[in-house]
Amino acid sequence: MTTKQTNERKQPKSVAVAAMDVEPRHSSSYPAPFAARVAGRSKRALGAVFGLRNFGVNLTELAPGAASSLRHAHSTQDEFVYVLEGHPVLRTDAGETRLEPGMCAGFPAGAGDAHHLLNPTEEVVRYLVVGDRTPGDEVSYPDDDLQARFIDGRWRFFHKDGRPYEAK
Amino acid sequence: MTTKQTNERKQPKSVAVAAMDVEPRHSSSYPAPFAARVAGRSKRALGAVFGLRNFGVNLTELAPGAASSLRHAHSTQDEFVYVLEGHPVLRTDAGETRLEPGMCAGFPAGAGDAHHLLNPTEEVVRYLVVGDRTPGDEVSYPDDDLQARFIDGRWRFFHKDGRPYEAK
Repeated sequence: MTTKQTNERKQPKSVAVAAMDVEPRHSSSYPAPFAARVAGRSKRALGAVFGLRNFGVNLTELAPGAASSLRHAHSTQDEFVYVLEGHPVLRTDAGETRLEPGMCAGFPAGAGDAHHLLNPTEEVVRYLVVGDRTPGDEVSYPDDDLQARFIDGRWRFFHKDGRPYEAK
Repeated sequence: MTTKQTNERKQPKSVAVAAMDVEPRHSSSYPAPFAARVAGRSKRALGAVFGLRNFGVNLTELAPGAASSLRHAHSTQDEFVYVLEGHPVLRTDAGETRLEPGMCAGFPAGAGDAHHLLNPTEEVVRYLVVGDRTPGDEVSYPDDDLQARFIDGRWRFFHKDGRPYEAK
């Protein structure tokens, strides 16, 4: 039950919510076979609750064994994560770094150093992730035959040689 | 001691840091007499540790009795807060809402509903705050004789009738 649903004043947006009350989304926009790699991940879109548009804030949850995403780097958009619960592993070009609650990491646009988070533990991992909406973003995936571009309001995925993956 | 200082590979930026290891800043850009109203507030600039430029992420700490800011609204920049510790009060046009750890709130650009956080308790409050860097931002302060504009890379403050406050 969200604050929004119980708000008798019928304001367009909630004043504040408990983040865990926001409905999680389990889907992925990755094409096959990559979508299966993020099974066990869920996202609660916190910024959208309040109508934010310049950046997104998700509370992302990784079940034991889950990955945040394929390892990737953004061309125009910054990204930031703050660990709330659990002990994810951050993988970048520099290797693996074990994180713990209260640790944070940032991935500046255009740096080219690809990253993702893994949960190799038996406990759930929860973290906040922030990303902006700067136009023209392209995403590179150094470990996979994939690249992505944000076109007409949605992500389009291509092989490294430019052939498109079938739209979902 | 930060990861950056101990990083023997001499990378330009840290891979990850414990947020509380980042040096806090206690200053305010408000002109007198308003700066005194945010005494007891400190900010750790987490996004800057990693060279992020599209948005800022601060870990803000409010000592008992402290305020986050004057009550304000942004014209072009979104803002988001997530409470990590303590029980701040969020004040908006709708009144006061008591928050607790795990609660979040967002303030979309241009909505006109001014906000700030207060710590009326005897315990410290810690929260994450995210704000983007969309140009042309103007800040309105409905409770005070103040308005702000971001000009040439810095905040300039004016009375409501347009007279500038003396630059600090």
